[in-house]
Amino acid sequence: MSNHEYVHGYSEAESNRLSVQAMTLNEILYGDTIFKEGSLVLEAGCGVGAQTKEIAKNSFGAKIISVDISKKSLSAARKKAADENNFSAEYLNCDIFSLPFLKNSFDNIFVCFVLEHLKNPDEALLELLKFLKPGGEIIVIEGDHGSAFFYPDSSDAKRNIECLVSLQAKAGGDALIGRRLYPLLKNAGFSDVCVFPRIIYADSSNPSLVKGFTKNTFTAMVEGVGCDAVSSELITAEEWEKGIRALNRTCDEDGTFCYTFFKATGIKKQ
Amino acid sequence: MSNHEYVHGYSEAESNRLSVQAMTLNEILYGDTIFKEGSLVLEAGCGVGAQTKEIAKNSFGAKIISVDISKKSLSAARKKAADENNFSAEYLNCDIFSLPFLKNSFDNIFVCFVLEHLKNPDEALLELLKFLKPGGEIIVIEGDHGSAFFYPDSSDAKRNIECLVSLQAKAGGDALIGRRLYPLLKNAGFSDVCVFPRIIYADSSNPSLVKGFTKNTFTAMVEGVGCDAVSSELITAEEWEKGIRALNRTCDEDGTFCYTFFKATGIKKQ
Repeated sequence: MSNHEYVHGYSEAESNRLSVQAMTLNEILYGDTIFKEGSLVLEAGCGVGAQTKEIAKNSFGAKIISVDISKKSLSAARKKAADENNFSAEYLNCDIFSLPFLKNSFDNIFVCFVLEHLKNPDEALLELLKFLKPGGEIIVIEGDHGSAFFYPDSSDAKRNIECLVSLQAKAGGDALIGRRLYPLLKNAGFSDVCVFPRIIYADSSNPSLVKGFTKNTFTAMVEGVGCDAVSSELITAEEWEKGIRALNRTCDEDGTFCYTFFKATGIKKQ
Repeated sequence: MSNHEYVHGYSEAESNRLSVQAMTLNEILYGDTIFKEGSLVLEAGCGVGAQTKEIAKNSFGAKIISVDISKKSLSAARKKAADENNFSAEYLNCDIFSLPFLKNSFDNIFVCFVLEHLKNPDEALLELLKFLKPGGEIIVIEGDHGSAFFYPDSSDAKRNIECLVSLQAKAGGDALIGRRLYPLLKNAGFSDVCVFPRIIYADSSNPSLVKGFTKNTFTAMVEGVGCDAVSSELITAEEWEKGIRALNRTCDEDGTFCYTFFKATGIKKQ
């Protein structure tokens, strides 16, 4: 993990994108994640804090400790929390693979958009399991870029998405991890593993979702790796532009866009 | 329509497959389709009657008229209804493009797994619109084979699915129609168009869904076009077998499978 590369980079634009993503998907992704009063919750890999607020505001009585390996991301997360001033969490700079906590101490562990970037998500889950109390629950949320489909269909757009998947794989990650949360959690030893797909469907009857998700979340994420894709010679600049135009085309009056996130839960055996 | 070819064929195995599909997906696809007491409902393209029972049993007070262009399918539908004897519908052999009804006469029109097989789904919708009362509602349900993804991911499996999509396109249909229900209904002139994706996710925590959907519905449907795919030289027999093995592999203990159906509704303007 210490050597892992975060495929999306740490730019300010990226930080904004992640906040937009959290805002438009809040209810779908986090609305049913409520931690009990008095529970101790670890958010493993909080990044710029885009999700921290969402889980914190549903669970005022819980104590949330959010950790991340990037000092820069953590400082953005702390600033965000200070600016908004309506939820509380503690932020700690540390690696998921060397957590400074007692074993068996957390009631819940929340992991969102983290495993997709790790070379060893299976080992990360084994590690996190140690810090969960027996009977405690892990909640994992990940996307799956292979779940994206749209109208008009376009091989140009699909080629761009494949570039993102390849770059993430080259950095040691897996952009198709959503579909494999079930075996990952089972193999790590969690019991009662349940996986809930959360599909996002956007058409022009919901312009704010088209803008907030198709354009400013998904297409913006793909656009963010354009330079890398071209400089890695995965694609030419012209092809890349064609793909972006095709993704933007799905935001038109007659366009539609689908993407599936996966939310998985598992229990540490007593 | 009169010259259209039904890509799945009309075999008995196919008839069984469609019944299995209806049984395992009932609640997800039809559970919320309830026609009011006294309403007159047209099921346009009932095939072997796999869906007729599902909509009829939720709506005892409605009168359902189910039509299909294939006499053979209708006779299977009638036999099924007689055998089960717990729902009522009238069956009529006719073409969607020359319906023997008065204009503006139906409260609801139900169209399920039909538009995907038509050369001209836009014209079919325009035609059906004529028979709906002003203020009446159309309900359209279609799949989208481009929505399928699975773990383990497999280019062999995807190639087989692409063969099915190509064969359906060659027969004038569109196996990717789910994603374009929104523009189809809007362009036909329906108002208040709403599209609801219905995602099916199967893993080994739900063995009956793995068997009923992944194996006996989706993989069986793909298997059903194997001879055509090989004889059309879209794929070799060896490649085809590899793809089928890869689809079956997703039914193993660690496998997962996702597919999205689309349910769309629209109103005839007053």
